[in-house]
Amino acid sequence: MNGFQLAYETYGKLNGTGSNAIVIFHALSGSSHVYQNKSGIGGWWDEMVGIGKPFDPSKYYIICANILGSCYGSTGPSSINPETGERYGLLFPITTVNDIVKSIKLLIDYLGVNKILSVSGGSLGGFQALDWAVSYPQITQSAIPIATASYATTFNVAFNEVQRQAIYSDPNWNNGDYYKGELPNLGLKLAREIGHITYLSEDSMKERFGRVLRYNPEYVFQFKEEFEVESYLQHKGTAFTKRFDANTYLYITKTIDYFDLRKEGDLALTFYPLKKMKFLVVSFSSDWLYPTSQSKEIVYALKSNGIESSFVEIKTNYGHDSFLVECDDLRVIVSNFLNNLIL
Amino acid sequence: MNGFQLAYETYGKLNGTGSNAIVIFHALSGSSHVYQNKSGIGGWWDEMVGIGKPFDPSKYYIICANILGSCYGSTGPSSINPETGERYGLLFPITTVNDIVKSIKLLIDYLGVNKILSVSGGSLGGFQALDWAVSYPQITQSAIPIATASYATTFNVAFNEVQRQAIYSDPNWNNGDYYKGELPNLGLKLAREIGHITYLSEDSMKERFGRVLRYNPEYVFQFKEEFEVESYLQHKGTAFTKRFDANTYLYITKTIDYFDLRKEGDLALTFYPLKKMKFLVVSFSSDWLYPTSQSKEIVYALKSNGIESSFVEIKTNYGHDSFLVECDDLRVIVSNFLNNLIL
Repeated sequence: MNGFQLAYETYGKLNGTGSNAIVIFHALSGSSHVYQNKSGIGGWWDEMVGIGKPFDPSKYYIICANILGSCYGSTGPSSINPETGERYGLLFPITTVNDIVKSIKLLIDYLGVNKILSVSGGSLGGFQALDWAVSYPQITQSAIPIATASYATTFNVAFNEVQRQAIYSDPNWNNGDYYKGELPNLGLKLAREIGHITYLSEDSMKERFGRVLRYNPEYVFQFKEEFEVESYLQHKGTAFTKRFDANTYLYITKTIDYFDLRKEGDLALTFYPLKKMKFLVVSFSSDWLYPTSQSKEIVYALKSNGIESSFVEIKTNYGHDSFLVECDDLRVIVSNFLNNLIL
Repeated sequence: MNGFQLAYETYGKLNGTGSNAIVIFHALSGSSHVYQNKSGIGGWWDEMVGIGKPFDPSKYYIICANILGSCYGSTGPSSINPETGERYGLLFPITTVNDIVKSIKLLIDYLGVNKILSVSGGSLGGFQALDWAVSYPQITQSAIPIATASYATTFNVAFNEVQRQAIYSDPNWNNGDYYKGELPNLGLKLAREIGHITYLSEDSMKERFGRVLRYNPEYVFQFKEEFEVESYLQHKGTAFTKRFDANTYLYITKTIDYFDLRKEGDLALTFYPLKKMKFLVVSFSSDWLYPTSQSKEIVYALKSNGIESSFVEIKTNYGHDSFLVECDDLRVIVSNFLNNLIL
């Protein structure tokens, strides 16, 4: 691959001393559009970014890039390969979290930013925040990894693999070469539905949908979705196919699977050079995809190096998706953490 | 449907007073072959059935039937419809747990059994044990529902629905009419892989597979299974296609989804007529598909009726599958419970 493009957005202004830059990293299906701003189009983290919110563009210079390998403006498998004039498809290289982080470092340099006040993100965004901290501790004051882990667990890999298989199984997928024909939307839809279940918690699903039927007052005894939760998943899956690329889904789930920050299996060793940084690690009680135990492993490795770190498990019902939708407590905690940094 | 067939096996002998009959119900993919006995072919619950084991054929008359709608000898969607000479396929009616229980009652009558000492089963087998208790409390002394629930939760329905979609998505499925052509094995394989993840626990997967690579010492950066856990799932999925029928998988997951024993939403009301029965309810700490909270709902409803009931949560690492593979503690608990019944 010769060269690549990164789509990015910035909010606020870099201050005179260049000390107020914050990098936000997005998760699997996110984009650089982290904040609605004046665009009118909702950002994926409007809960956390905005005037009076923790990531406040009136105080901070906020940078968010679409990750390498994605399909929202940055170069990825659905981009045109300039060498062939065709989409990359499976010719695109599989990227690691570190590749992504390095590419965003190039962007930071390009923007003339020399110091980073904080990096943050949830899920895969948290992977990047941690990888960034390990890669650039000299220029980075702090990191806020949220609902995340220092490595993809066996469970993460297993769920990602069945989601990929849903896409491979779609005859339209055609080994990744589908851009001129029918899209593998059935496979992508099913992948997203499986994924979506893992983002929710059993309790939130029970509370929201219970065993309520969608269309009929009684069971119809047919193979058609009947329960609210089935319709909800179908709706979520179908909507996703309208905004996402199947190959990109394959690539980014592989990026997740490959992530393992542990040096020789020892995270404390990885964090050793981060002595001067500050960390705020946040997990959510109902998140079973990136459970609190994974956050605690991070905190343990930080603390064992004497690195200044706070840990909060927020009690929520929303599962992994809590970091996107259940932000009342998160706002307070992140704001206080940022306010105590040295601008 | 005019008439149906039930495959069943019995072990031991009915005693003179007819007081030693135990009915065991199987789960999604089980059969009537609960016990190896002299067949040489392993039974699905050899851990629990056998001389010196809780369900001891030298003491009890043990009955296990393949459930209606399954594919191990009882009539189901893969059976020949005598009216057409063709396989039923989707013309087979979707059965409820109560239909299954009623059909097994016919078998019990046919066998000349008038009293049931105990009924037991795990997962869907536990659904049947509960439904049996509610249907035939007059003739049933006790029930041992294991790793189960009184209704399919939203979570159960969600996971079952994505598994069904994996089968629907396979072009070979052909709306259930595939018996003369290629089988929808790709869909069935994926369904089983998804299911299999839900039967395990995060901890057991981590312990067993970690992030160990299967074929190469390093990541290969290709879309091919690389991690042990991926190969394991593929292996499990493929093996399953050699012993199970895709339509049957659809039917039985629907049977699960429809199960809800709560009368007007109130399980205590359901259990009201069971005053004279005894219950042993068992859950497993790492089972997140049929979590302890669901067993506690059962116990709460039993206790609120003053029904004699014991509850044990066994500490295990194996998730939902614990009831099949982690039976040391289960043997002790079930044996003691059975020994205290009146023969």
